[in-house]
Amino acid sequence: MYATIITIGEEILIGQIVDTNSAWMGYELNKVGVKVRQIISIPDIDEQIKSTVNQSVNDSDIVLITGGLGPTNDDITKQALCQLFGSELVVHGPTLEHIRQIFAKRGLPLTELNSKQAEIPSICEVLHNPLGTAPGMWFDINSKIVVSMPGVPFEMKGIMQQHVLPRLDAFADGVSIVHKTIQTFGLPESFLAERLNDWEANMPRNINVAYLPNPISIRIRLSSSGNSKELIELEIQKQIDALLKLIPNNIFGYENDTMASVVGDLLVNNSLMLAVAESCTGGTIAHLITHQSGSSRYFLGGVVAYSNDVKVSALGVDSHLIETYGAVSQQVVESMAQGVMLKLGSDYGIATSGIAGPTGGTPGKPVGTVWVAVSSKQGVVSERFSFGSDRERNILRSSVSALNMLRLLILSEKKIQ
Amino acid sequence: MYATIITIGEEILIGQIVDTNSAWMGYELNKVGVKVRQIISIPDIDEQIKSTVNQSVNDSDIVLITGGLGPTNDDITKQALCQLFGSELVVHGPTLEHIRQIFAKRGLPLTELNSKQAEIPSICEVLHNPLGTAPGMWFDINSKIVVSMPGVPFEMKGIMQQHVLPRLDAFADGVSIVHKTIQTFGLPESFLAERLNDWEANMPRNINVAYLPNPISIRIRLSSSGNSKELIELEIQKQIDALLKLIPNNIFGYENDTMASVVGDLLVNNSLMLAVAESCTGGTIAHLITHQSGSSRYFLGGVVAYSNDVKVSALGVDSHLIETYGAVSQQVVESMAQGVMLKLGSDYGIATSGIAGPTGGTPGKPVGTVWVAVSSKQGVVSERFSFGSDRERNILRSSVSALNMLRLLILSEKKIQ
Repeated sequence: MYATIITIGEEILIGQIVDTNSAWMGYELNKVGVKVRQIISIPDIDEQIKSTVNQSVNDSDIVLITGGLGPTNDDITKQALCQLFGSELVVHGPTLEHIRQIFAKRGLPLTELNSKQAEIPSICEVLHNPLGTAPGMWFDINSKIVVSMPGVPFEMKGIMQQHVLPRLDAFADGVSIVHKTIQTFGLPESFLAERLNDWEANMPRNINVAYLPNPISIRIRLSSSGNSKELIELEIQKQIDALLKLIPNNIFGYENDTMASVVGDLLVNNSLMLAVAESCTGGTIAHLITHQSGSSRYFLGGVVAYSNDVKVSALGVDSHLIETYGAVSQQVVESMAQGVMLKLGSDYGIATSGIAGPTGGTPGKPVGTVWVAVSSKQGVVSERFSFGSDRERNILRSSVSALNMLRLLILSEKKIQ
Repeated sequence: MYATIITIGEEILIGQIVDTNSAWMGYELNKVGVKVRQIISIPDIDEQIKSTVNQSVNDSDIVLITGGLGPTNDDITKQALCQLFGSELVVHGPTLEHIRQIFAKRGLPLTELNSKQAEIPSICEVLHNPLGTAPGMWFDINSKIVVSMPGVPFEMKGIMQQHVLPRLDAFADGVSIVHKTIQTFGLPESFLAERLNDWEANMPRNINVAYLPNPISIRIRLSSSGNSKELIELEIQKQIDALLKLIPNNIFGYENDTMASVVGDLLVNNSLMLAVAESCTGGTIAHLITHQSGSSRYFLGGVVAYSNDVKVSALGVDSHLIETYGAVSQQVVESMAQGVMLKLGSDYGIATSGIAGPTGGTPGKPVGTVWVAVSSKQGVVSERFSFGSDRERNILRSSVSALNMLRLLILSEKKIQ
């Protein structure tokens, strides 16, 4: 079963809001075996609504529409659907009563504009919206399904969860779609693809592979569909097992894992405490860690040592090291990692020092040069990175690389024990 | 001039990512007088790419495409466009050289997959992409414009800003659209709207007002269009001047200003240095500050004092204060702000301590309770906030509120001098 999602509203097209409804709907539809063919955003223009819905009914089995059901004059979705489907607006008693109650609860009089929201195309089935004044509408059009819902995200989600998804689930009987996402770090996309060339070539025909890069990591997504969910999951797991043998160190997690959540789990499961000393990353590592709820179980805190004086006074870095090797050096970053570990009394220390840019580079240390160190009770490891010239990316890449080094160090020390 | 935006990628349709490119593009296109007719998201399927692009070229003057230009096999946008426009892929020398340099800089060999990214449809004009390996492509098709760009947001934005928007701006001669955005903080939307009721009622007919709330601030956008850009800008400025009289303390900036950039400018223009002591914000304030290029001119660094021990050892907070009043208290947060100012030798100190959630609340101090202090040579001010139960929003709101308190303190101390 194929669906088209149509989101209606001028505010989407002028970039005033980001359409997040579609992504949520796509994700939920997938889970009940419905594939989204396309997502179309259009303004509240009568002709465009009618032609887009008409075309979508031809292309797809299901058309899900959000937006344009508000009480003000610019909202015209109901009228457009009436004209397109040859229906007319009639007052729906239970909806009018529901609207009346909402206004009574707020101690407000019922306005004419709002009571008009109880006028519904006569040929549709009303889907009750407990969270707002505009109900959902379910149309059966030439054995295709058309559903119109309000654009307010939580109202749309309520109607989808209570009415639309359960019904579609019942239609799509038998067929399951399974997606598994593997999170990788440390190999650029082309290297990853080359390394996985044979693995991909031997992939069973029914499993689809996609590489989804973002500025810091690459997700590999395996997708398949069929009648037995268990069987598909088993087949996909077999491919993940093969992948784990090919790039064991590069796979850091699955689905919505982040590097910070994976490192957090490693620390808490091994009763380990972390402290950080950040220069070029300027608090971003701490920010990523403390974004995780419960991070106080494994994170003591840290020092943002942006100036050299702070490296010396708060972390105990020998000022001669800075004079001799410069702040962006293996010597200084290792001393920072060990310093923060000692000062704060943690099991592990992370430190960064580099040139985030866009200025401050030298021929020997161009913008994007970053030293990262990770220290443990067993010693300290460090690495020099060369990122590009984009400040934001440098900070993020340095931060995630540092967390990844910590991840690998904890794993290797666990192995040795 | 009407545009259609097409975003390509299975990940959008299955809800793995939210398409934020379109909103950004819609906003920027508007500024150069181009109206977006529709936004369409489709998967990497050859037939669908060709039919959607073909239809869009018929519907619109400009078709902007993002996505599907990666080095892996699932990316097929270039091939589809070649077939649709009757062109063929040829190696583009400067792009190949650019890719070679990117890999050389990272100390990596050039792979065959990546060198294929230099193969470009022969009939297009190449738009250099300094931030990545896939260039943009500009096609003139039957006096319509088709532009294909990578889907990675910052690469797309770079190509749009450097090449596409300036050219489109030159086409839209005569009519100017002017948008001015005023950044406000500290008043909820309904309060702001009520306060500005008369101002809005007296607005000239040709100026449009929009309120754009996000989780932490509310932007007010004034828009107008006409033949004289100067005249429109003058009219809009008159309205901004009136607004400044109504809510002087709530307006912190304009256009793309952030609270951190505004505070950074204030500090650097007055030769002041800042240090931060963060508990519940866990490094986010430092992260927001150091996100600004050049922040080392006014930011010394700080301490992420996540555990109470660190508050005592690194910031010099009296442990009796913590025992008596608790870590989330006026006494402790003021001591933290003054402690970090003294220890790091800055002109101003910021401190936060609170319960970010979702757990850790008590009846007296529920989740969302946050104390913020700002200290200067003249003394210390503090405030207790009650944010909601959402961890991410609490951290961000606390951080921006702290920066706003610093902004107001510097402004008031400047006034007194």
